Amino acid sequence: MTVSRPARPASRTRRPRTADDRRTEIVLRASELFDDVGYHLTSMDDIARAVGLAKPTLYHYFPSKDSILLAIHEEFISILLGRQRQRLERDDRDVSDLLLDVMVDICDLMRTHRGYVRVFFEHHRELPDASRREALAARDAYFDSVRGLFERGRTEGLVTGDPMLSSMALFGMCNWAYQWYDPRGTLTSLDVARYFHRVLLHGVGATPSRP
Amino acid sequence: MTVSRPARPASRTRRPRTADDRRTEIVLRASELFDDVGYHLTSMDDIARAVGLAKPTLYHYFPSKDSILLAIHEEFISILLGRQRQRLERDDRDVSDLLLDVMVDICDLMRTHRGYVRVFFEHHRELPDASRREALAARDAYFDSVRGLFERGRTEGLVTGDPMLSSMALFGMCNWAYQWYDPRGTLTSLDVARYFHRVLLHGVGATPSRP
Repeated sequence: MTVSRPARPASRTRRPRTADDRRTEIVLRASELFDDVGYHLTSMDDIARAVGLAKPTLYHYFPSKDSILLAIHEEFISILLGRQRQRLERDDRDVSDLLLDVMVDICDLMRTHRGYVRVFFEHHRELPDASRREALAARDAYFDSVRGLFERGRTEGLVTGDPMLSSMALFGMCNWAYQWYDPRGTLTSLDVARYFHRVLLHGVGATPSRP
Repeated sequence: MTVSRPARPASRTRRPRTADDRRTEIVLRASELFDDVGYHLTSMDDIARAVGLAKPTLYHYFPSKDSILLAIHEEFISILLGRQRQRLERDDRDVSDLLLDVMVDICDLMRTHRGYVRVFFEHHRELPDASRREALAARDAYFDSVRGLFERGRTEGLVTGDPMLSSMALFGMCNWAYQWYDPRGTLTSLDVARYFHRVLLHGVGATPSRP
């Protein structure tokens, strides 16, 4: 049952929002514009208009479009890294389950942060060097933690093959979903993640190995 | 053995090149610029300068930057479609081999046409509607022929699973290589294709199926 809330008092709208709220809103609106219109065709003027801020105020939060791109990346990579670290600290799941968790997290981003992901995948090369290094270091940390799962799986005799290439297979299947996955369709992001996890672990061949 | 050819006579350089040669050269140079500088940051002036043409001559071949983007796509999709059709006409390979051939073709594009692939993946949404439809129809034809292999494999009892999702797994692994594969590294594009083919058919799990 939905309980209807009382109308918001007029004074409430005038209460200044926190700087964090503002930043979050700017990043969200900018990512929508980048996704709809394209990163290069979106100006700081467009972003200021979309958020309802004067341009100098926008520049107070983000000195450049690049810095918004970096914040977009920080937001989704910190979600991925945070969830992965929590799981690894708990240490109550085997490698196969941990790989499924990673794949579920990434595929779910295609639902919750689709524009963010696309913008970052397609424009990280254009970040200024210092920001790019920082963004790539976070991606590398995530990649390494996933590769570490394949290494651990190999040590435990649960997984075969090359950890680097297996990680690229995992990321390829899941990341590419930003090009085709439509959250409004019949497949949930969980269906997709589970299917790819099955491919990754067992493949689609009907026979266990080639003659 | 390589037979050295006689030095090209000076008059040879003055012989007008065919329109096809010119188009090919424009597409090649433009794809390099798009890859290095970015599609949006490259102007028709830059392309004319890179090819050594006056701008009106460039416009004679390509009325817009979009039309070059479309030609880039036509070139690599026609390579993929052409090879696939030849193989299917011969009908001398089983589904597993045909899937390997597809994966080898795509991974090899990451070596031979890397800039083309990236530009198309990242900018096809920006094509005018008519061109976009044409480009996507060619991609769809290729996708359908790959999905058809999984359908055939299922009929023949060689492959299990959902043909659409299995195709997305194949394209995800191979297409994503444009983000990470470096042809100057130790892995050949054939190594990568073979590894992903093994994952696709048999997975990396050490046990054939989960308990």
